[in-house]
Amino acid sequence: MRIREFQDVIDRMYSAKDRKRGSAGTFLWFMEEVGELAGALANGSHADKEGEFADVFAWLATIANVEGVDLEKAVAKYAEGCPGCGKLVCVCGDEEKP
Amino acid sequence: MRIREFQDVIDRMYSAKDRKRGSAGTFLWFMEEVGELAGALANGSHADKEGEFADVFAWLATIANVEGVDLEKAVAKYAEGCPGCGKLVCVCGDEEKP
Repeated sequence: MRIREFQDVIDRMYSAKDRKRGSAGTFLWFMEEVGELAGALANGSHADKEGEFADVFAWLATIANVEGVDLEKAVAKYAEGCPGCGKLVCVCGDEEKP
Repeated sequence: MRIREFQDVIDRMYSAKDRKRGSAGTFLWFMEEVGELAGALANGSHADKEGEFADVFAWLATIANVEGVDLEKAVAKYAEGCPGCGKLVCVCGDEEKP
């Protein structure tokens, strides 16, 4: 599935509701899912983790929809290499973010 | 770009480093990016938001790589409808999460 296709599925499914909530209100629900992902990473089964990764991705996509951001276009910044060092296999220092 | 393709790009770019960090260490950097996204949503340009959405997605993908979770497979739970109500256009109550 394409990134854009997933964002479109989420748009049809949730945008009417999330546009009413706005980005800030939607972000709160996103954060709850981020917390659930943390819990699954700490102490969940593989299936739990799969479910929580999907949910965080879905909430990220819905906020992007509310903001009119195209995630597939946005990630083009990674297509040519690490935004930090420009390499396809990152060589930024371990102490740096990437 | 397919979800799987993006995850593979991120795998080649960062996995050696992030496997050493482990999920918990990588999650800390993810959270920093989530904070930057919050800042962009509150007070950023469209380009700032695009950049931060991409970074949060990239960090989510790298944690998924460390955990051996296939994001494209994971989001199949949304393909048939909202996981809450089962509908393609969600009809869960506004007070509920989706």
